[in-house]
Amino acid sequence: MVIVIQCSDKVGLVAATSNVLAKNGINIVSMREHVDTDKGRFFLRIQTEGEQNTDTLAKQLKEALPQDAEVHINPIPEKKIIVLVTKEHHCLSDILIRNHFKTLGATLQCVIGNHEVLHDICKRFAIPFHFVSHKNISKEKFESDIQLVINQYNADYLVLAKFMRILSPAFVEKFPMRIINIHHSFLPAFIGANPYKQAYERGVKLIGATSHFVTNDLDEGPIICQQIIPVNHSFTTSDMVRAGKEIETAVLAKALHLVFEDRVLVHENKTVVFE
Amino acid sequence: MVIVIQCSDKVGLVAATSNVLAKNGINIVSMREHVDTDKGRFFLRIQTEGEQNTDTLAKQLKEALPQDAEVHINPIPEKKIIVLVTKEHHCLSDILIRNHFKTLGATLQCVIGNHEVLHDICKRFAIPFHFVSHKNISKEKFESDIQLVINQYNADYLVLAKFMRILSPAFVEKFPMRIINIHHSFLPAFIGANPYKQAYERGVKLIGATSHFVTNDLDEGPIICQQIIPVNHSFTTSDMVRAGKEIETAVLAKALHLVFEDRVLVHENKTVVFE
Amino acid sequence: MVIVIQCSDKVGLVAATSNVLAKNGINIVSMREHVDTDKGRFFLRIQTEGEQNTDTLAKQLKEALPQDAEVHINPIPEKKIIVLVTKEHHCLSDILIRNHFKTLGATLQCVIGNHEVLHDICKRFAIPFHFVSHKNISKEKFESDIQLVINQYNADYLVLAKFMRILSPAFVEKFPMRIINIHHSFLPAFIGANPYKQAYERGVKLIGATSHFVTNDLDEGPIICQQIIPVNHSFTTSDMVRAGKEIETAVLAKALHLVFEDRVLVHENKTVVFE
Amino acid sequence: MVIVIQCSDKVGLVAATSNVLAKNGINIVSMREHVDTDKGRFFLRIQTEGEQNTDTLAKQLKEALPQDAEVHINPIPEKKIIVLVTKEHHCLSDILIRNHFKTLGATLQCVIGNHEVLHDICKRFAIPFHFVSHKNISKEKFESDIQLVINQYNADYLVLAKFMRILSPAFVEKFPMRIINIHHSFLPAFIGANPYKQAYERGVKLIGATSHFVTNDLDEGPIICQQIIPVNHSFTTSDMVRAGKEIETAVLAKALHLVFEDRVLVHENKTVVFE
Repeated sequence: MVIVIQCSDKVGLVAATSNVLAKNGINIVSMREHVDTDKGRFFLRIQTEGEQNTDTLAKQLKEALPQDAEVHINPIPEKKIIVLVTKEHHCLSDILIRNHFKTLGATLQCVIGNHEVLHDICKRFAIPFHFVSHKNISKEKFESDIQLVINQYNADYLVLAKFMRILSPAFVEKFPMRIINIHHSFLPAFIGANPYKQAYERGVKLIGATSHFVTNDLDEGPIICQQIIPVNHSFTTSDMVRAGKEIETAVLAKALHLVFEDRVLVHENKTVVFE
Repeated sequence: MVIVIQCSDKVGLVAATSNVLAKNGINIVSMREHVDTDKGRFFLRIQTEGEQNTDTLAKQLKEALPQDAEVHINPIPEKKIIVLVTKEHHCLSDILIRNHFKTLGATLQCVIGNHEVLHDICKRFAIPFHFVSHKNISKEKFESDIQLVINQYNADYLVLAKFMRILSPAFVEKFPMRIINIHHSFLPAFIGANPYKQAYERGVKLIGATSHFVTNDLDEGPIICQQIIPVNHSFTTSDMVRAGKEIETAVLAKALHLVFEDRVLVHENKTVVFE
Repeated sequence: MVIVIQCSDKVGLVAATSNVLAKNGINIVSMREHVDTDKGRFFLRIQTEGEQNTDTLAKQLKEALPQDAEVHINPIPEKKIIVLVTKEHHCLSDILIRNHFKTLGATLQCVIGNHEVLHDICKRFAIPFHFVSHKNISKEKFESDIQLVINQYNADYLVLAKFMRILSPAFVEKFPMRIINIHHSFLPAFIGANPYKQAYERGVKLIGATSHFVTNDLDEGPIICQQIIPVNHSFTTSDMVRAGKEIETAVLAKALHLVFEDRVLVHENKTVVFE
Repeated sequence: MVIVIQCSDKVGLVAATSNVLAKNGINIVSMREHVDTDKGRFFLRIQTEGEQNTDTLAKQLKEALPQDAEVHINPIPEKKIIVLVTKEHHCLSDILIRNHFKTLGATLQCVIGNHEVLHDICKRFAIPFHFVSHKNISKEKFESDIQLVINQYNADYLVLAKFMRILSPAFVEKFPMRIINIHHSFLPAFIGANPYKQAYERGVKLIGATSHFVTNDLDEGPIICQQIIPVNHSFTTSDMVRAGKEIETAVLAKALHLVFEDRVLVHENKTVVFE
């Protein structure tokens, strides 16, 4: 069982939480706690042995904690996802394989593509592929067409696996911290003065490709995972594209793994990642 | 303030601990907990805001926890170390620089060398160097000579920074989990003499280094930190030695940092490292 | 065009080679040369612009070089491979995807499995799967059954993608430097069965994987590629297995990429890898 | 002996070069060649056995190669450097240690600081320290004061080891490709469209801290070396500064090693690094 809690910080929150668990005879196997002292925010992730009635436990925990506490127990035991793609296959293929062999930690419900080219690979794994064209229609219409497909399912997360259209704020706000993107670059730059402070404020995790939650600020959502890959003078542009695809695949896989194991807590524009 | 606890596992240990802290009005900034379920062992590291009367707090925690609990509060606020060397300077130089600029997280009390070659570099930083020769004397005598030097100080840890003599079980057991070694290899590969020549002959593509606590089993104590560095066919044996020195320096620096921040807990032959 | 040459070393080999190319008006885009001075062995890899009549060129190069020179021009323009598997899918899946999207740099002709479990994933990509059981028969018979399948194709390389049977020297010597294995460990550590359990017991902080050519010495053939992945105390044995699969997949993919681009030259028990 | 050549590309340059070497009975141990096909530029680095009369050889090579060829033989057998610093010690300390133990691959002639704080550490290694204040004077005067110190030596390179003043174009152009800087960030950003093409044009090598040659465009000179270090949510700004210092030290050490071994060739705003 996994318990994830965040709330405003004060003395005694760990005691309050662990007392509830102790009274229920629950053994804690692993616990990670973090306080963002700048923002006075408390973050907690607990992994326990065995399962429990989660409704009762959640009620008890909420009573023991401050009013603003967000308590999630086994937030979603088996997440369900929808993947959005354009033409590039590398991230989708990796997800299809992991989904097929049940190592994804989530269930892939369908794939939505604004091109048809990836229909075939989905069919090979018996995953529904919905072609939603963006051509000759407004962005509003395009997004409402996507919404119609999404409505047929009950996905917990939308994964943009090299989906090359920019989603409107109106669309994004329907899925707060529920859209995960893989960005083809190391976000952001930090040229200029005091880069470490900038990096700290921005909450970067690493540096090459970046996976992040999508917010209204394009490419500016909370960063989940970043990694790099070395290149050198012998790389042509296409070699760099090729290397980029490898690292994009790896970073998105890592980010999804962290999210699906409830290791990623978000507050404002930063994540706490209990790896 | 840092609190480190380990004991046999049972339900309610986090609650017991955090209740004591809450009653004392102590705010937890960061908490790491791990249970080794195979061995039924509980490990906890807590970082708090502000300082407190540690004696009272330790007493209260011991009363609240199982009898076998080891409770260390700010185990050693400023660790003191003695470094043992032979001829190679790279690890020692790194420690001397960090000690000099007060970024080591510990105080270097003296250096003991079984050769005189590193006397000069210590003198440049006004660190006492004690030459203790191993020549023409028994290991027993050699070690009792070392012990005489150690007795002049009150070091918390002995750091073997490329000390090339094997210490006897009798010596080692006087400093349980207080001797830290840097091993010139990625353990458990290439144990024994001349590992870089072995690595060269085998044509490996990576070489590593391992920092570990010293126990009676040579090169078999609990591992603190391991890292690797890539090598290739163009590396001669001496290039490998050179690369090996870089990675040895980095791994020992990382291991010492972890130990000095009380992030390394040991049980039997394994470490829990709360990075 | 790629030209790969190795022979005993002497003065003038680069001149001899590049003169032949210059006379043919061939422009060298990239050149890597290495001399193993211990063994007096010369290795050369040249990448040129455009294509050429390779037979004529090879003849001219052989005339210009020592008698023992091995000259390969575009050694195999499009390599063909057969993959051998047992039950684990991760390396095979990665190869299937890359083969399907034509980014493997080789053509997968068929898969041979000593269990049937991976038949299904091959069928999804329309790749022939041959089930060859090892049960209730001698190793001799098992290997001759495999050989019968291999004979139906014309593969350049056999790839052991988590094939868990040990091949006999008699079988191996039929495919000198043409069998590529992925080893579930950082060689030479943890040789033998259940390496992840060994790694867990030892409390290592890194685990690695090694891809190598198969020779008669089990796990001792020339190493092509090695990489590591960090682990920590919170990893159970099965977490280590899971992390191991990620690194095995990555290392085998890298090794195949290097071999298929003719970047790996072998002499005795070591490789020269011109990355 | 190391031979480094660059010129406009045409067929037969390797042949022309290697013929000259063969006629002189020189054995090539390692050879790296690269052609920038976009710019039609040829780069060559050759490592040979033994030493030779370099003047004669250089003359012969120049005769055999295009008029625009730059031929450097053992460009500078033992480079001499001057280090410029402000207050931070980490890069300087590393250079002082390597210089002292003769593993730097160059000779440190003196240190120039615009603060006095690092005078002491230089004195410990008997390295002259020149204090040149920037206070209450024009940049012009400040730089002419620095120039006066430089004039007392004959350094091949100026190393900016956390020198926090921006040098004027007038100063910089006196030392073309002879000033090496360590930048406290990953250069550059690549936000926006087609980042891999941008990265290719920019010639990046890696990604965290960046070491580059200084040109008139601030932080825009040819990149020599880049590396990253992972950080996470638990890092405060000062933890990030601390981690940054570790990676800055490592990247500058690597860059200097590459430059001092004549592995870095520059053309326009990009480097070719034959690692």
